[in-house]
Amino acid sequence: MDHNTKSLEHLVQALRQLPGVGVKSAARMAYHLLQHDRDGALRLSQALQTAVQNVRHCERCYTFTEEAICSTCSDPSRDQTRLCVVETPSDQAVMERTGAYEGLYFVLQGRLSPLDGVGIAELGLSHLMERASNGVIEEVIIATSFTAEGQATAHVIAQGLAKRGIRSTRIARGVPAGGELEFVDLGTIAHALADRH
Amino acid sequence: MDHNTKSLEHLVQALRQLPGVGVKSAARMAYHLLQHDRDGALRLSQALQTAVQNVRHCERCYTFTEEAICSTCSDPSRDQTRLCVVETPSDQAVMERTGAYEGLYFVLQGRLSPLDGVGIAELGLSHLMERASNGVIEEVIIATSFTAEGQATAHVIAQGLAKRGIRSTRIARGVPAGGELEFVDLGTIAHALADRH
Repeated sequence: MDHNTKSLEHLVQALRQLPGVGVKSAARMAYHLLQHDRDGALRLSQALQTAVQNVRHCERCYTFTEEAICSTCSDPSRDQTRLCVVETPSDQAVMERTGAYEGLYFVLQGRLSPLDGVGIAELGLSHLMERASNGVIEEVIIATSFTAEGQATAHVIAQGLAKRGIRSTRIARGVPAGGELEFVDLGTIAHALADRH
Repeated sequence: MDHNTKSLEHLVQALRQLPGVGVKSAARMAYHLLQHDRDGALRLSQALQTAVQNVRHCERCYTFTEEAICSTCSDPSRDQTRLCVVETPSDQAVMERTGAYEGLYFVLQGRLSPLDGVGIAELGLSHLMERASNGVIEEVIIATSFTAEGQATAHVIAQGLAKRGIRSTRIARGVPAGGELEFVDLGTIAHALADRH
């Protein structure tokens, strides 16, 4: 046993499962909580349990919600003719924080990654096609990442929508806000040039 | 609200209290757990609760234990004449992992830091003096950090022990194992030179 007691050892193991936490950080967290912040440890324990119990996927857009339908989907003031496709609930939250989008969302369950067993079926693309074909949606904005998998996902979605005669657009790739050309990679500049408007 | 739901928001807040975790990492952890590892989240919740319930301080050396007296203190094969003073239960675990020490321990509740309200009383130094004066202890090995606070703590302990006629030693400061002189800071080399044996 590497740590003082069995409960501590279990706690370190459980903390290691968090993304970005190695064995040293996990030990540091566990000792910190037990030595200096037992109330914080109990609050975290409770928060984890509550979140797992209460948080589920919206039945319409599949983002995280505590109701059957999320607040965005049930907001009548949102533009019902636009649908933004993102990879995760976290991406949806980021998009919302920009305050630049007034339409609805569709949250994929990840992105195409055949090697990890995530194919077209796992992503919920059929639900997306169904939703986009409801006769109200006029534009599907594809906001998946600009990684290889995100691009492949965007490609498959755009193809599927085109086949059904639904218009799709892709968010722009270009120089970041505040970015100086000198420090931006060449591929990004090339894309920014190609996508000029 | 920055995140999709209130429970998620609370979870992100609770994760932020962990040392070394900022708002971005906390969000990443929370989304990861809810999207990909709900079992892991429940395991972590349980591990936190169990650790807070079960882990307490050993009545003799003040390290973490689940019994009244820790396994090191109650092990008759340990050298009862040597007492190693460390700052935290985590330091005690590190010392144990070296396998180079056969004596007993005394775990301080931190190190002197008057600005943070940690004075001589808070550290449990009177318990240490009492323990070291039991007539069996022949040597107190001071293994506090080589930071300003750790050094001040070591100084106060050494003084207190000297006043009671108890022999104390300090772990050596020097070049790390595998260290090349070229990459070691000058202060460390100077100390390694002074402490040559």
